[in-house]
Amino acid sequence: MSNAIGIGMIGLGTVGTGVVQLLQDAPSAMRRRRHVDFAIRRVAVRDVGKARDVDLGAGVVVADARQVLEDPSVQIVVELTGAAPAYEWIRAALQAGKSVVTANKAVIALHGAELFAIALDRGVDLMFEASVAGGIPIIRSLRNGLVANRVESLHGILNGTTNYILTRMTRREGDYADILADAQKEGYAEPDPTADVSGADAASKLAILSRIAFHTTGTAADIYCEGIERIEASDIEFAGELGYTIKLLAIARLVPGGVEARVHPVMLRHDSQLANIHAEQNAIEIVGSAVGTQVFTGAGAGKMPTASAVVADLVELAERKSAGASTAIGDMIVGDEAAHFAPMEDAELRYFLRMQVADQPGVLAQVARILAEHQISISSVLQKERGLQGDTVPLVIVTHKAREGSMQQAVSAIDGLALVDGGVRLIRMETT
Amino acid sequence: MSNAIGIGMIGLGTVGTGVVQLLQDAPSAMRRRRHVDFAIRRVAVRDVGKARDVDLGAGVVVADARQVLEDPSVQIVVELTGAAPAYEWIRAALQAGKSVVTANKAVIALHGAELFAIALDRGVDLMFEASVAGGIPIIRSLRNGLVANRVESLHGILNGTTNYILTRMTRREGDYADILADAQKEGYAEPDPTADVSGADAASKLAILSRIAFHTTGTAADIYCEGIERIEASDIEFAGELGYTIKLLAIARLVPGGVEARVHPVMLRHDSQLANIHAEQNAIEIVGSAVGTQVFTGAGAGKMPTASAVVADLVELAERKSAGASTAIGDMIVGDEAAHFAPMEDAELRYFLRMQVADQPGVLAQVARILAEHQISISSVLQKERGLQGDTVPLVIVTHKAREGSMQQAVSAIDGLALVDGGVRLIRMETT
Repeated sequence: MSNAIGIGMIGLGTVGTGVVQLLQDAPSAMRRRRHVDFAIRRVAVRDVGKARDVDLGAGVVVADARQVLEDPSVQIVVELTGAAPAYEWIRAALQAGKSVVTANKAVIALHGAELFAIALDRGVDLMFEASVAGGIPIIRSLRNGLVANRVESLHGILNGTTNYILTRMTRREGDYADILADAQKEGYAEPDPTADVSGADAASKLAILSRIAFHTTGTAADIYCEGIERIEASDIEFAGELGYTIKLLAIARLVPGGVEARVHPVMLRHDSQLANIHAEQNAIEIVGSAVGTQVFTGAGAGKMPTASAVVADLVELAERKSAGASTAIGDMIVGDEAAHFAPMEDAELRYFLRMQVADQPGVLAQVARILAEHQISISSVLQKERGLQGDTVPLVIVTHKAREGSMQQAVSAIDGLALVDGGVRLIRMETT
Repeated sequence: MSNAIGIGMIGLGTVGTGVVQLLQDAPSAMRRRRHVDFAIRRVAVRDVGKARDVDLGAGVVVADARQVLEDPSVQIVVELTGAAPAYEWIRAALQAGKSVVTANKAVIALHGAELFAIALDRGVDLMFEASVAGGIPIIRSLRNGLVANRVESLHGILNGTTNYILTRMTRREGDYADILADAQKEGYAEPDPTADVSGADAASKLAILSRIAFHTTGTAADIYCEGIERIEASDIEFAGELGYTIKLLAIARLVPGGVEARVHPVMLRHDSQLANIHAEQNAIEIVGSAVGTQVFTGAGAGKMPTASAVVADLVELAERKSAGASTAIGDMIVGDEAAHFAPMEDAELRYFLRMQVADQPGVLAQVARILAEHQISISSVLQKERGLQGDTVPLVIVTHKAREGSMQQAVSAIDGLALVDGGVRLIRMETT
C-alpha cells in the first residue's frame, strides 16, 4: 500500500457513505483496471457519536473539517456536505495543495471561476462529475469525449424531483400539490422543495454545463428561471391533446448574441426522446458540430449513482497522480474569450397560450389583434365548448416563433382585457 | 509550435479527411480548452496523385506506410485504412514507441490482447474510441466514467446499416432485399454488405466492449452471431401485432457461468428505449451495479462523428504527453482474472416461434408436445385464420424462459413434422 492515495472526506451522509462503500468493496473490476489504492485517512462529520453504516477504523472520524484540511497525509479532499462552509473548505483544500472532488453544484456554479484558477495556480485538480446528473458521465463526456466539437445546443432534464412530479401529473395521478406531498413522503423531494420546483437546482447545473460547453462565466442567477409550481393538471391535459408532453428543461444554445440559457417548463412533442424520460430519470441531449445529436440518460441522483461519479473522479485523479501528470484543470479556465448569456427577451420561441375567455363574440378578435400588434403570428387556435366553468370557455393559441420580449408585452396586454378571466397561462414550446 | 505533437496518418479516406479538417479548423473551443498543438507530419495514402479535399503542404503525403512508421518526428500514428496490413502497421508503430489511434474494430477485437501488451511494454498508448459507435464516447465512459461499477449487462444497437434496414422494414417501406438495395444506393450499406447484415461487424464491436466491461478475452469468432438476412416483412408484422419491434442487438451480460455474449435479431417491447432508436442511429444501454441503467445514443458512423472520436483520442493523448503522464493502457490488460464467454446453448431466453401449419386438427397438440418434452413452457399462442396461402395457416407461439440448447432441439423436431410447412422461424425476445 506504499502508493495508496490519502483521501480525506468532509461529510459522511448518504452519498459519502456510498463513496466509502465503493472504495472499500471496490468491485474487482475497479481493482483490476487501476493499479491504484486508496486509504481513507480522515473523515469530518457533524456528529462523531452517530452510528454509521461503514467502519472506518479508529481515529479516522473527526469533528472538525480543519483536521481533514490540515492533515498532511490527505492528498485528495472529498467534499460532500452541501453545507454552508463548503466553498471555504474547498478553497482551503485547494490552497493547501490538495485536489478536491465535490458533488456541490451550487459552489461550482457560483464560485467555479475562482476555484478553478486556484487549482491551476497550485497545480492540483477540482473534479465535479457528481454535481450534474448523478452517475451520468456528462461532465467528462463534454470535456473529453466531445472536445472536437463546437457544442451548438444542450437540452437537459437535470432535476429528478420535478421530472417525477410532472411524470405523475402526466399519468393523471393527481394535482401538483398532492404529488409533491407524495414525493416528499417517498423521499424524492426535500421537506423544503423550493430549490427543485423553482428550477434553481437545474439552473445551477446548467451554469456548470454551459461553462464547459460554451465558456460562459455567468452563474445561475444570470439564467432565466421559471419553475413548475404553477403547472396545472389542465395544462398537461391540453398539451396532451395537441400531442405534447410538459417537461422542465434546462436549455443552453449558441445564438448570434451569445448563449441563450433558460430553465422553464416546455412542451415537447410526445415522440421526442426527452419527452420519454420518465420519473426521476435525467437526460441530456447535446448537438455537436461534428457528432450531431447525442443523448445521455440515467439516474440523476441517489446514493450509489452519485457515489459512482465521485469515485470515477477519484480514480481519474489517482491514476493521473500515479502516472506523474500535472493538473488537468486548464480547460475549465475561461479567459478573454468568455461567452455571455444573451438577454431572455431576445429569445425567439414558439408559445402555447391558454386563457379562460367570456363566451361572447369578439373575444378572439381582441386577442388576435394584440398578438398582431406585437408581431406575433398565430399557428393554431383551439376553442373548446363551454364546460362546467360558468360563463367562460378555454381558448388555446399556439404561435409561430416570436420574440420573448414581445410576447411578454402581449401577455400583459391580454391580461388587461375585461373579457379574459384570470390571466394568460403561457408555456414555451421546444423542438429537440 | 515548439510543443506541437507530431501526427502521422495512414489512410486519408472519408474519416481521415474529417480528422485533418478537425485538426486544421480546430473549433476555437478545442484550442481554448487544450494548450496543445498538433502538426501533421506524414500521411501515407494508396494514390499520392489523387485530388484531396484538404491541403497538407508539400512533402507530407507519401505512398508508403513505412515512411510514417519510421519518421522520428511522428509521435502518434493515426491508422484509418481498414486495409489488410492495418494490424502489422499498428503493431510496428507501437513497437517503434509511437502511440496509436485507430478506428479499426476488427484489429482491436482480434488482436487487442497482443497490441495492448506491446503498448504497455513500450510505455505508449493505443486508443480506439472510434472503433465502436462512432462519435458516442462509450469507450471512455466504460473505462473511466463507470469505473466504479461492476457492469451487469450491455445491450447495443451497434450497426447502423442493419438498424436502418430494420427501421424501414418496420415502416413497411419494402422487403429486406429492396431496402438493402436502396441502402446501398444511398451509401448506408457497402457494395458487399455481408459484414453488416450478418452481424459480424456488431460482434467485433461487442468483443471490444465486453473486454472493457467484463474482462473477456474472446474475439468476435467466439460470439454467437445471427444476422438479419432472413427477417421477413411478415416477422415484423407479427411482432408489431404483439407489441414488439425487431432490432439487431449486441448483448453481453454477467451470468453464473461467465459472460453471455450474442448478436442476433430480438423482439423488444415497443416502449423500450432501444426499440425507439431509429434509422442509422446507434445506442448502448448499460446496467451498472452503482449507476443502474444508462443509455447513450447518437450517430454510430459517418465521416465527422467518427473523426470526432479520433480527435478526442488525439487530444487526450496530447494532453497526457504534455502533462508528463505515462501510458494509461493498464486497464486494458486482462490478466489471470479473465472472464469467459458462456456457451450459447446455456442461455435462458424467451422465444417467438412462427410456422405455417396444415389447417387440420391435432397440429397444435403435436407442436405443444414437442415443446413440453424439451421442458419449454408456452406463454401465449396466436393462430390466425386461413389467408391466401393455400392449406396452411400461421401459428405463432411465445414461450416462457427456456434453455437455448433445448429450444434448438425442439425446433429441429418441429421442423421434422409433416404438418409443418417450411420450418420454424425463431426470434429471441429481450427485455431491456
